[in-house]
Amino acid sequence: MEETFVPLRGIKNDLHGRLMCYKQDWTGGFKAGFRILAPTTYIFFASAIPVISFGEQLERDTDGVLTAVQTLASTALCGIIHSIAGGQPLLILGVAEPTVIMYTFMFNFAKDRPDLGSKLFLAWTGWVCVWTAILLFLLAILGACSIINRFTRIAGELFGLLIAMLFMQEAIKGLVNEFRIPERESPKLIEFQPSWRFANGMFALVLSFGLLLTALKSRKARSWRYGSGGLRGFIADYGVPLMVLVWTAVSYIPYKSIPNGIPRRLFSPNPWSPGAYENWTVIKDMLNVPVLYIIGAFIPATMIAVLYYFDHSVASQLAQQKEFNLRKPPSFHYDLLLLGFMVILCGLVGIPPSNGVIPQSPMHTKCLATLKHQLLHNRLVATARKCMRKNASLGEVYGSMQEAYQQMQTPLTYQEPSARGLNELKNSTIQMASSTGCIDAPVDESMFDVEKEIDDLIPVEVKEQRLSNLLQAIMVGGCVAAMPFLKKIPTSVLWGYFAFMATESLPGNQFWERILLLFTAPSRRYKVLEEHHATFVETVPFKAIAMFTLFQTAYLLLCFGVTWVPIAGVLFPLMIMLLVPVRQYILPKFFKAAHLQDLDAADYEEAPALSFNLATQEREMGRTASFARDGEILDGIITRSRGEIRRTCSLKVTSCTATSSKEFRSLRSFQNPRPSEKVYSPRISELRGDQSPRLDGRGPFSPRTGEPRQSNLGKSG
Amino acid sequence: MEETFVPLRGIKNDLHGRLMCYKQDWTGGFKAGFRILAPTTYIFFASAIPVISFGEQLERDTDGVLTAVQTLASTALCGIIHSIAGGQPLLILGVAEPTVIMYTFMFNFAKDRPDLGSKLFLAWTGWVCVWTAILLFLLAILGACSIINRFTRIAGELFGLLIAMLFMQEAIKGLVNEFRIPERESPKLIEFQPSWRFANGMFALVLSFGLLLTALKSRKARSWRYGSGGLRGFIADYGVPLMVLVWTAVSYIPYKSIPNGIPRRLFSPNPWSPGAYENWTVIKDMLNVPVLYIIGAFIPATMIAVLYYFDHSVASQLAQQKEFNLRKPPSFHYDLLLLGFMVILCGLVGIPPSNGVIPQSPMHTKCLATLKHQLLHNRLVATARKCMRKNASLGEVYGSMQEAYQQMQTPLTYQEPSARGLNELKNSTIQMASSTGCIDAPVDESMFDVEKEIDDLIPVEVKEQRLSNLLQAIMVGGCVAAMPFLKKIPTSVLWGYFAFMATESLPGNQFWERILLLFTAPSRRYKVLEEHHATFVETVPFKAIAMFTLFQTAYLLLCFGVTWVPIAGVLFPLMIMLLVPVRQYILPKFFKAAHLQDLDAADYEEAPALSFNLATQEREMGRTASFARDGEILDGIITRSRGEIRRTCSLKVTSCTATSSKEFRSLRSFQNPRPSEKVYSPRISELRGDQSPRLDGRGPFSPRTGEPRQSNLGKSG
Repeated sequence: MEETFVPLRGIKNDLHGRLMCYKQDWTGGFKAGFRILAPTTYIFFASAIPVISFGEQLERDTDGVLTAVQTLASTALCGIIHSIAGGQPLLILGVAEPTVIMYTFMFNFAKDRPDLGSKLFLAWTGWVCVWTAILLFLLAILGACSIINRFTRIAGELFGLLIAMLFMQEAIKGLVNEFRIPERESPKLIEFQPSWRFANGMFALVLSFGLLLTALKSRKARSWRYGSGGLRGFIADYGVPLMVLVWTAVSYIPYKSIPNGIPRRLFSPNPWSPGAYENWTVIKDMLNVPVLYIIGAFIPATMIAVLYYFDHSVASQLAQQKEFNLRKPPSFHYDLLLLGFMVILCGLVGIPPSNGVIPQSPMHTKCLATLKHQLLHNRLVATARKCMRKNASLGEVYGSMQEAYQQMQTPLTYQEPSARGLNELKNSTIQMASSTGCIDAPVDESMFDVEKEIDDLIPVEVKEQRLSNLLQAIMVGGCVAAMPFLKKIPTSVLWGYFAFMATESLPGNQFWERILLLFTAPSRRYKVLEEHHATFVETVPFKAIAMFTLFQTAYLLLCFGVTWVPIAGVLFPLMIMLLVPVRQYILPKFFKAAHLQDLDAADYEEAPALSFNLATQEREMGRTASFARDGEILDGIITRSRGEIRRTCSLKVTSCTATSSKEFRSLRSFQNPRPSEKVYSPRISELRGDQSPRLDGRGPFSPRTGEPRQSNLGKSG
Repeated sequence: MEETFVPLRGIKNDLHGRLMCYKQDWTGGFKAGFRILAPTTYIFFASAIPVISFGEQLERDTDGVLTAVQTLASTALCGIIHSIAGGQPLLILGVAEPTVIMYTFMFNFAKDRPDLGSKLFLAWTGWVCVWTAILLFLLAILGACSIINRFTRIAGELFGLLIAMLFMQEAIKGLVNEFRIPERESPKLIEFQPSWRFANGMFALVLSFGLLLTALKSRKARSWRYGSGGLRGFIADYGVPLMVLVWTAVSYIPYKSIPNGIPRRLFSPNPWSPGAYENWTVIKDMLNVPVLYIIGAFIPATMIAVLYYFDHSVASQLAQQKEFNLRKPPSFHYDLLLLGFMVILCGLVGIPPSNGVIPQSPMHTKCLATLKHQLLHNRLVATARKCMRKNASLGEVYGSMQEAYQQMQTPLTYQEPSARGLNELKNSTIQMASSTGCIDAPVDESMFDVEKEIDDLIPVEVKEQRLSNLLQAIMVGGCVAAMPFLKKIPTSVLWGYFAFMATESLPGNQFWERILLLFTAPSRRYKVLEEHHATFVETVPFKAIAMFTLFQTAYLLLCFGVTWVPIAGVLFPLMIMLLVPVRQYILPKFFKAAHLQDLDAADYEEAPALSFNLATQEREMGRTASFARDGEILDGIITRSRGEIRRTCSLKVTSCTATSSKEFRSLRSFQNPRPSEKVYSPRISELRGDQSPRLDGRGPFSPRTGEPRQSNLGKSG
């Protein structure tokens, strides 16, 4: 994205780009069939559960003026609008914690003013929303989102981790409160006797840890060893909502021997109970607000505008990280403009506005990547099997697979079909073909496990469409009607779910993995490479990694501390925005440019040309191609750009070639002179944070022996 | 062990064999230094905790005549005698569940007889013990233990799994009872109000699952990624007792807000409280028992004798499984004789006798294998490092390591030093040397990770000595004095510990792994090979494995059902002994001899000569040597018997040899013409049941490609 501050140009560009693929956004979604329900349900729960619990928090803090009904309504309304009219459909909208804090602050201010009071509170927030929207319009029109590019990994990941910490804090607070008497309840009730309170707390511990552990396990079901593939897939896709159901059922097991209020369950008025609709007619009262307060509303509005500008953009950015290999264009400016309209709308009907949320938005992209992977997988396996039944050779099988793969590519009218994914497949194909033997012999399934090999071949791609976002928003809206059922969920299950969301957002966050790296024994640092691709582990000295991570951790703790400050706390996004100049002007003074580039790649920095370094080359090789480590010699590897597969036989089977691996190495070095030109595409399992075992070199023939691949790992400890 | 029924010959042989290494049993133990404390503590807890809880059970069932003080005293007394005077010091003695059931039955019989009553109960059991001992003497002298050889894997593993089920049943029962009012307590106490009972139950769930999960995690600490090696080792060695401490401490956290009896804790009289010693003078009363009852005591005595004969021998057998590569001779006959003496002794002082226990005995061997591994590891690493500092070549480093390894071998006076372990090291050494490059270049630590490589080299060996057994028995004795502290442990932590013991005994049990295999998706069956060595997965068709396992499972459930039958239940060992003729005469009619041989190798069956099969050869090769799969060619491999290392260079680095792997294969086939002559020694991690990832072929160069190694896995699904 170029930095353009010409008014309206950003919005125009966004609209142009997204309109090009608007039709495909819908057709693509419908083509996925019923499988689209897996990411939809997953995100629906991730979206609805926090919104419900924020609604409960809001009800407590606003004396019941706002409840879960309003937060759900806002999330559903904004979600539906955004999924249809929004730019980036990967972005998930919802009422977020900062909004709740902001509204609480405004309520405390309003209820003490005689000429506002809790009666005119919503009318006043209506004015705040109007001002906020005007500021958001200005920001969007003037192209403020252009500087989003300067929000490098350091800011985004720090924000992600901060949100995870806040979620975890919410979970812990919630659990602790299960042992206490809730403020709004009468302490004379039977369930608040010391014995029942203790029993309730212990029950809450069981339910929340039960949910957390089983939900985490079920997400990894795909790599289980037991059960059929279909069952494993079902558990992985729907395990989390299933576990919410299961643990809610468990909470009813001892219902005969315990009083009604144990365990505590969600509290919210039914939407059809009298009074629930009082605040929908706020617009009538807005003119009753004294002029002074209408003008004064500008002050909270600026804070909210800054907050939304940051939150919305970063959520969108995290949902579109490079690792996802997205094909469709982003839409920061236009989405901010649309957010302005939605803020006005929410303000006028007296509900708190929604904005882009973390971690739900990146979670959404991740599970759409899983979906795309499944679709590609099924198509390619079917193609390969069909081909093999015709007694085709391995070369023909791969040819037909490539054709199928090409057909699956999103045909975007305004751009050339991206060649990257194709090349990925082609290269892996060649590797695989040569490793399985001569490519022109007829193959059958006993020779290779089609399902497994194809899983390893497919690069990360995301099913970019609007349907899952629309459906989840509609389902959130359905929650308002389903309130009587939702009220059966124990609050402790919610706390477990909060902890689950915090935990789920960690894998893939490089900041988090660097923190873990600090605690990793020097001799085991190589293991980091097995699970997640992390260039920096190989190219940056450990000391620099440690310094950088410690700085970032200190900054994170500072931000976390700021959220505890009573009112100024809502301004913590400013702290994170401050990271932008710090990263741009101060950090380069303490770290080498090359290291910063690897730790926190910024688009505005040119990749520095490293001096040629054979050791790095060899390490590099060890990752992108495994030829040398297996003693494999392939001379057909240079066909990369032409799409044909040269006949090549591996030494392993018939030893028909005899180039030494040393020669091969120098060849590779020649082809790939700069280590920063890495062609790496993460596998789906890395994004999902799977713990599936990998080639790790514990066998007698360790893949790294003979190559000093991990030498700087061993030494730096 | 030969089958000898000549009177006394078995005992003589045992004594002869064990006396030869008696001195070394002690010196070896002392030489291990403070490290011996790790297995000692581990086994002490595994031994003491069940004995304490069986004592509690006994107290409830015998109206307080026998308590945990007596069971602990018996365990300590018999343990000390056996560790000093016993044959096989790997065998752990303790009061076991069958003994408790038997004593309960006898108490119920005695208390209703006017001329016995609970007053003369212990005197009567004294007579039962005398009769039992006489029967055990007869069995030992007549060489009954010779038929232990006919107890194949099928019986031993079924028994192991049955004990695991009984432990798990105990854990579940215990947890359920935490929600109920204990029988002996007054239901009017505050802690038995419904609210506190529910709170107690929930607290128990938290404590027991907390202990179970953390104990299981801590056992795997050695493969953790975080923390220093020393810390990880400490946690792995002492994690379980540490966790008992931690969760006992946790149980005190809410002590201010809950009544005294929550959570429930161990109940036992202090050994110095009045009345605790009443039963130590049983011998005086023995002549007061009516003659009819003295003769009648023969009936329960036969049952106990059969039970002990089976239990003691199988526990000893399971502690000496082939996989452990034990060097010192077994001692079944003599140990049974000694058990007879100990039964008399216990009977005369009025405490229930101890016998060999499962799963503690195999656990003991397993953790001594870990100890031996550490000792070997430290010594070899130190030797290698010292050598490398002198700029030695790889060949010299390995030479010195082999020398050190030889010195570490137990010098047994009566036999040649076993060549097997040495050969193991030598072969691995050659493999490793060639895979790291030419063997005569100077090496430094950057070239290979000494610690890790050596870990992979060392074969399974067990530190066979008497010290750990003696120390743990003394510590169990110390428990009697430490009763006031032990009483602080919540019973729920005990239930968690029972579940932990049951879970810990599963890995390595091939029956269990076959059950899991039945539930494994066909496409993932290859994973079984990664974690545990299991020949049968490769050589036996899946259908035969399934049939065999289903038969065994049905038999297991039958045995488990028998334990529920009120009185006849104690005879369940007879059910398992029945397996011996079933295995010998009936099973061969349903299964092929070759398959039975692989599923359940029996010494009395001659390994059938399979027809020569190249595919099997290749599979075989893939496991014992990884040369072919890496395209490695070694011509120096045939130096096996002479102890020298021929200079050999691997193709991987300089490609100086050019034999094709096909030629190499035929060479190997020639050397190793029969697939049943497998030279396989499991690695320590397999015995420990580590989940550490292994070479699994998920990389683009799958190690199995080119070889139809798993073909029958893929097809059979």
